[in-house]
Amino acid sequence: MIKKIDHIGIAVNNLEESLSFYEEALGLKVENIEEVSEQKVKVGFLDIGGVHLELLESTSPDGPVAKFIEKRGEGIHHIAILVDDIEKSIAVMKEKQVKLIDEIPRKGAGGSKMAFVHPKSTHGILLELYEK
Amino acid sequence: MIKKIDHIGIAVNNLEESLSFYEEALGLKVENIEEVSEQKVKVGFLDIGGVHLELLESTSPDGPVAKFIEKRGEGIHHIAILVDDIEKSIAVMKEKQVKLIDEIPRKGAGGSKMAFVHPKSTHGILLELYEK
Repeated sequence: MIKKIDHIGIAVNNLEESLSFYEEALGLKVENIEEVSEQKVKVGFLDIGGVHLELLESTSPDGPVAKFIEKRGEGIHHIAILVDDIEKSIAVMKEKQVKLIDEIPRKGAGGSKMAFVHPKSTHGILLELYEK
Repeated sequence: MIKKIDHIGIAVNNLEESLSFYEEALGLKVENIEEVSEQKVKVGFLDIGGVHLELLESTSPDGPVAKFIEKRGEGIHHIAILVDDIEKSIAVMKEKQVKLIDEIPRKGAGGSKMAFVHPKSTHGILLELYEK
């Protein structure tokens, strides 16, 4: 069911500036930058040994990332785990009474499918189920 | 210099209860539980495809994890990246004017060496440099 941690999402104020920091201080490589209009974000991916840091800059002041930063400042926004069958994972969680934000998968970056699990169920983590 | 993300540290109120959740809802396996007295925590490790979730329960009300939960609630506490030479990584960061919490490595779980980078430099992430 769960294959690996695919990426860690990090809310930032300025994508270019943050990517530069990770490139220079940690020697990481930027893989690609794209816009995910459904989430109102511009995202940049960095690779660390097969797991990605997904830096997220909001493209709108009413987007979820803008609201996150307003409340808590820049920082870790979510953890995404790669699953082979997102509908099945959602069904298993519902059966175990786990609270989900998305009971039906949404469209994520690069044509992927994604669904968020509620932090109330996961001890404070915004967990993303992610199917490529 | 950087090899991979070793683990993601998560601050929890009750280690046993949180481990049970991750075992049952996500089907993850608990690898080991130990106490790290220097950090005033009891930790439990779960494996997700080679990266670990490190659940942290404070063993003292004045420990760093207890203070974190008091301020922000349960949730993601830090990201640890595995480096091959922690002293060298620290030296590179100092040269690039990155703010460090630990300029001299401390003792971590399982006889490892660790040093925290300040969230002010990393856009909000408490980043742990970790050498096995």
